[in-house]
Amino acid sequence: MKRSLPLFALLLCSFFAQAQADKVRQLVQQRQQQLLQEYLQFVAIPNVMGDSINIHRNAAFIQQMMERRGIATQILTLPIKGASPLVVGQVKVPGATTTMGFYAHYDGQPVNPAQWAKGLSPFTPQLTTDRLDRGGSFVPGNAVPAVIPEKMRLYGRGSADDKAGVFAIIAAYELMKQSGQQPKANLTFIFEGEEEVGSIHLDDYFTQHKALLKADLWMICDGARHVTGRKQLVFGVRGDINAELKVYASARPLHSGNYGNWAPNAAMRLAQLLASMKDDKGMVTIPGFYDDVQPLSKAEKEAIAQIPDVVPTLQTELMMIHPDGDGRNFQELLNIPTLNINGFAAMNVGSMASNIIPAEATAALDLRLVKGNTVEGQFNKVKRYIESKGYTVLDHEPTAEERKKYPLIAKLTMNDGAYPAQKTPMDLPIAQQVIAAIQSTTTDAVIKIPTVGGSLPLYMFETILQSLPVSIGIVNYDNNQHAENENLQISFLLEGIVTMAAVMGVH
Amino acid sequence: MKRSLPLFALLLCSFFAQAQADKVRQLVQQRQQQLLQEYLQFVAIPNVMGDSINIHRNAAFIQQMMERRGIATQILTLPIKGASPLVVGQVKVPGATTTMGFYAHYDGQPVNPAQWAKGLSPFTPQLTTDRLDRGGSFVPGNAVPAVIPEKMRLYGRGSADDKAGVFAIIAAYELMKQSGQQPKANLTFIFEGEEEVGSIHLDDYFTQHKALLKADLWMICDGARHVTGRKQLVFGVRGDINAELKVYASARPLHSGNYGNWAPNAAMRLAQLLASMKDDKGMVTIPGFYDDVQPLSKAEKEAIAQIPDVVPTLQTELMMIHPDGDGRNFQELLNIPTLNINGFAAMNVGSMASNIIPAEATAALDLRLVKGNTVEGQFNKVKRYIESKGYTVLDHEPTAEERKKYPLIAKLTMNDGAYPAQKTPMDLPIAQQVIAAIQSTTTDAVIKIPTVGGSLPLYMFETILQSLPVSIGIVNYDNNQHAENENLQISFLLEGIVTMAAVMGVH
Repeated sequence: MKRSLPLFALLLCSFFAQAQADKVRQLVQQRQQQLLQEYLQFVAIPNVMGDSINIHRNAAFIQQMMERRGIATQILTLPIKGASPLVVGQVKVPGATTTMGFYAHYDGQPVNPAQWAKGLSPFTPQLTTDRLDRGGSFVPGNAVPAVIPEKMRLYGRGSADDKAGVFAIIAAYELMKQSGQQPKANLTFIFEGEEEVGSIHLDDYFTQHKALLKADLWMICDGARHVTGRKQLVFGVRGDINAELKVYASARPLHSGNYGNWAPNAAMRLAQLLASMKDDKGMVTIPGFYDDVQPLSKAEKEAIAQIPDVVPTLQTELMMIHPDGDGRNFQELLNIPTLNINGFAAMNVGSMASNIIPAEATAALDLRLVKGNTVEGQFNKVKRYIESKGYTVLDHEPTAEERKKYPLIAKLTMNDGAYPAQKTPMDLPIAQQVIAAIQSTTTDAVIKIPTVGGSLPLYMFETILQSLPVSIGIVNYDNNQHAENENLQISFLLEGIVTMAAVMGVH
Repeated sequence: MKRSLPLFALLLCSFFAQAQADKVRQLVQQRQQQLLQEYLQFVAIPNVMGDSINIHRNAAFIQQMMERRGIATQILTLPIKGASPLVVGQVKVPGATTTMGFYAHYDGQPVNPAQWAKGLSPFTPQLTTDRLDRGGSFVPGNAVPAVIPEKMRLYGRGSADDKAGVFAIIAAYELMKQSGQQPKANLTFIFEGEEEVGSIHLDDYFTQHKALLKADLWMICDGARHVTGRKQLVFGVRGDINAELKVYASARPLHSGNYGNWAPNAAMRLAQLLASMKDDKGMVTIPGFYDDVQPLSKAEKEAIAQIPDVVPTLQTELMMIHPDGDGRNFQELLNIPTLNINGFAAMNVGSMASNIIPAEATAALDLRLVKGNTVEGQFNKVKRYIESKGYTVLDHEPTAEERKKYPLIAKLTMNDGAYPAQKTPMDLPIAQQVIAAIQSTTTDAVIKIPTVGGSLPLYMFETILQSLPVSIGIVNYDNNQHAENENLQISFLLEGIVTMAAVMGVH
């Protein structure tokens, strides 16, 4: 569906797309019992990084699921100890000039079984009649009914994050074909096993398999539908820098009586430095901090205006009267960079406090980056700002010589693993096609989010594969991802299959 | 020696006083072996609060030392579990209208024997030929020589702080009498056993024995001579308030990506609040903070001008280029109140840091008070300042109702045990007499300090007994007080006896 089509053609396409989605949904309903039975086997395989045997069992299971559906597969590995395999599936369409990529991950967050609700075990998937804390009860013998009730849930690690994504993609391919539709673009599927530890080898896989993994668009199938239940597409993520700022005063902590008023206080110095970085509206005062931000496009501004407003709900829940952000829209604020104090420390508070003038004080900072910011650039703005306050900024503990030489000393270091933001323009023709495809599966308006506040290293798709990613979440928002009692509302998985099948029609 | 005496009389008095001091010094030299032997027995009695049996053995030993010298004694106790006895000695002089009080304490700081140097044990006093870390060695069998070498030291808990004070007072009385001089004022001696835990019952003793303990001047014999070796008198101490300031943002910590730029950060709020309390010269900006300070008298200003300048030495040792205090004199800065951050904390730094927006942040503060400040007044200045920044200042954790009602919430609490400053005017006639008495024992100018930076609850002498205290330190400054390897340079104790005997001549 190209943007230049006349209105009539658009409406016609839309009509056929809706009819197609309905067909897939019907098939999903017919096959629901069998699909869930297969999914239960998948969730039963432990999937925490470090448990190498089970990580490989997951990869083999995924490979078999694809093979059963006629998808060509390969399992890529790296000669790095502990690196999880990347499972790849490919569907080549004769004559196709476009390739659509589909990504999900099969690894899960570490578990502490003791924290899970009574009767639950992270890797013994358990069906329940509803959310357990809303009166749900265990389904005896995990017997899958022929018709799965709307509220039925499946508890288990990975049930929502993100085996649901893996399964929805693979099942969608099968059901799309069964519905009579053939893919028009080549399809590439990749399933990663290290997302929860920061996708630490994804760049290696991308670099070594550039040609294999190049696509016109990568659909990242991870995360949840909007809290309202509406389907949502995410076009960007913020980048992230973790940094540590430490300031120094005397060579050692001093008695606050004997030296108070005379000896400088490292905690006060740090407080003054940090305090001056934001104004009383919570906006960053560091010169140029917002300067290189890529402005929102017209399409992005329109999309933002249509995102349901969660602020009143949040303010009530968080018991917060005045948000930061100088009165700007919540979503707008997620589209500019941040400077945040994660924590600070100097000597002790509470019962361990003593009458001391701290000699050192430390703050942990994180800087979220948006499109336009670079890691080095953003870090250097902070560094130059501290220098402008008279500080000599070191990247190491000051030596005695340095202490004797510089009146004001700070140490600013960047942690490993910083990366830039990624954003896919939502007005790209192929992005517009994806939006229309999703919209064809639902009568509610699809929510389009230019950038979420959080960070993922999606920039790799762009910088290594020269491909653009778009993210879609299919599971229930209340899935307890990363925590105990992770669960999936099964009707969301089934509808997710319909959603992914629709995207597979894009070309 | 009244201030109105003509110059000739002053010089005459001075001459006799010096002659008297020389006589006592001669006697000390004759008796040095015996005095040290007695002192070794005293230091051998463990003196840490909580060790009730030994605390009482110390009290009994002190009582015996006084009785042997013909001083009337009594041991005061309180009906409070664990309270240490107060040992009192009295010398009544027929016709005397003045009473001089002498205070020292017999308890010591807790010990960790493992931290002491090899061969040392805190309560097995050990003589050495010099400071151990300057090449001193153990004196075999602790044999006390007839003539004690200048550099000889005695290691043991309480050897310097403050059994030296107790012993110097008692021995001074004996040797003054032996030298042929009779006291002209009544003498009252008190020896406390709880100084190292904050003199927690001294106010009870004072209240219950007001008449017994009233004196025209109390000499507090505790602490060290000046770092230059010169004798020094201290006329005041700062008061102290410990307070905790906590600020709140959201009801719980939030993900810095999902909420960054929008959710207020408690650490930033606290940083901004603290930062605004001082200017970049380290002076407190809270309105009225310095307003009620009692100005220094002419005598105090002159005394300050004559205190040896330790600042260059300190700056070198502390590797500090720019002190706080807006260019004011170090001593002057000890004579104004302080506001100091002892420590602060919000979430974590270092390896435990996470991408979080802290919901709470806490600072431990101490406020040193000088004469003119009141505890309530100084605390309220801080409280009103925080209020002026838009905060509602509570004395408890905010309730949900309060969180929903007030945009900015802080909790400010004062710890137990705050107390005001104490200062004795150094131009009082009796204070002038004490200065002259000490000066008669030395050719170096006696250092007079209007107020030291540290805090002691000496206000009790003033408010309960209506008596004024003056402090004198007699031991070597490098005595490791409060720490491991506490030690006394014995020649300082012997000269301390001369000093205290001179003060006993005051009337």
